[in-house]
Amino acid sequence: MEDDFGKALRQTADLMEKELPEFLPQNEGLEQQLYKAMRYAVLSGGKRMRALLVIQAADLFSVPRMHSVRVAAALEMIHSYSLIHDDLPCMDDDDLRRGQPTVHKKFDEATAVLAGDALQSLAFEILSDPLTHPLAEVRIALVSRLARALGAKGMAGGQTMDMYASSKDIDIVTITRLQQLKTGALITFACEAGGVLGHASPPQAQALKAFSHDLGLAFQITDDILDAEGTPEEMGKATGKDAAAGKVTFVTLMGLEEAKVHAAMLADQAVSHLDLFGPKADLLRQAAAFTVKRRT
Amino acid sequence: MEDDFGKALRQTADLMEKELPEFLPQNEGLEQQLYKAMRYAVLSGGKRMRALLVIQAADLFSVPRMHSVRVAAALEMIHSYSLIHDDLPCMDDDDLRRGQPTVHKKFDEATAVLAGDALQSLAFEILSDPLTHPLAEVRIALVSRLARALGAKGMAGGQTMDMYASSKDIDIVTITRLQQLKTGALITFACEAGGVLGHASPPQAQALKAFSHDLGLAFQITDDILDAEGTPEEMGKATGKDAAAGKVTFVTLMGLEEAKVHAAMLADQAVSHLDLFGPKADLLRQAAAFTVKRRT
Repeated sequence: MEDDFGKALRQTADLMEKELPEFLPQNEGLEQQLYKAMRYAVLSGGKRMRALLVIQAADLFSVPRMHSVRVAAALEMIHSYSLIHDDLPCMDDDDLRRGQPTVHKKFDEATAVLAGDALQSLAFEILSDPLTHPLAEVRIALVSRLARALGAKGMAGGQTMDMYASSKDIDIVTITRLQQLKTGALITFACEAGGVLGHASPPQAQALKAFSHDLGLAFQITDDILDAEGTPEEMGKATGKDAAAGKVTFVTLMGLEEAKVHAAMLADQAVSHLDLFGPKADLLRQAAAFTVKRRT
Repeated sequence: MEDDFGKALRQTADLMEKELPEFLPQNEGLEQQLYKAMRYAVLSGGKRMRALLVIQAADLFSVPRMHSVRVAAALEMIHSYSLIHDDLPCMDDDDLRRGQPTVHKKFDEATAVLAGDALQSLAFEILSDPLTHPLAEVRIALVSRLARALGAKGMAGGQTMDMYASSKDIDIVTITRLQQLKTGALITFACEAGGVLGHASPPQAQALKAFSHDLGLAFQITDDILDAEGTPEEMGKATGKDAAAGKVTFVTLMGLEEAKVHAAMLADQAVSHLDLFGPKADLLRQAAAFTVKRRT
């Protein structure tokens, strides 16, 4: 039976499937190859977990959905861009994503690079639009946080560490920092953005940040567990790649069982930061539990 | 003998060489490969023509240099990002840029993709910082314009047209639109940004926009002329590539002599839009003349 969280996740996914196409350009000009690739990447499903985090964090402050949905859309553009570029032959060289050919397989490499580039720009275009929030101060705060989350001290820096760190460099401290940059920075942005939209007080903002840090790490450890345990059929993408590549992950460093214990502990710890929000934060609490229980 | 404009261009280049390193991250962590590539790309010289346009347009309104230099820096980050990605093997596949190995040659393809990605983010980070302008309204206006100039209806769209349009599709109308997206959008941003920083009146903003449209086109036609006429030694990059690739350019469509006449006419037309600024716009007028007279 579907629980409250399952229902919220499905409703968010439905909402995003409806809203996302509105932001994506469509035309019949010579640049249509780019437009098709952007739509293909963004509208190919996905759990929309990041969108849910933005919307649920904003709901804590009763932010109108018309605002939080736009920030969620911007973040989904960024998430798609990062997947497109990470899948490139010169990076992780993946052929499948969510059971479908990756963008450079469906189109070609140049289109994949350009579609990722244009999706990054589109996210900033969405955030800077007055429809996202009437106050320029709020919009620029969102832009500033997103830009930092993406850059050399965020996602791009984390991806570089992931590409170039040799296994001997990586211990548990290093991989934690790597993942906080590579995947954590965007999850933190998702949760913090809700607070920015809702004019969170400093303790509220701090609580969301602490929640997002533990959640992001629990999420990544679970990804490593799923790569080690899952089948390609379940996951819609290649699995066992980390082990095949001799890659250091939380699983290789901690062992499968300890990784599971650690992820569960982090999810509990994430929940504990939400006390000051009372029952309003129940869906975010369930999101933390889902993060470590999911099978894909 | 160096004229006023030559001096202004040299001073701008010197200023940017001094300022740009301040914005570029540096550390010794595992992500240092990314930081090195970003610095290599951005600090490799270049005419800094876009920086000059931002600063000179802002000077029309007596905008403090501490603000216009930051917008100029953001634009140079974007210009570097676009060159890194355009040079990739899957795009134009260039080995040399300003007489030096391109980023993917000096480092590797993954680093080149990530350095471009991180430089795009860095530009938005710079623009969103209160040091760029104390008013959030001004900063968000800059972000919004830059995001649109970069995206599917700007630079990325133009680059896609350039990659996928077959020669039979391209006439003078199409190539003009292609170039207005691919290179024109950023040049327009440069000129308009000065007006945004300086709270330009609608007629002033319109004049800068009209100037930038003609200038951008004159710039691109001149690029095509230089590709047809220049030697690799003069240009610091491969030349004659357009012809070798059977590529349609303004030169193949118009012939060399008519292309030169057209570029000169556009430069004159660009200048005519600046009348309302009086002698204060002399350096921008000279920039238009330089655009078509330059040899690199």
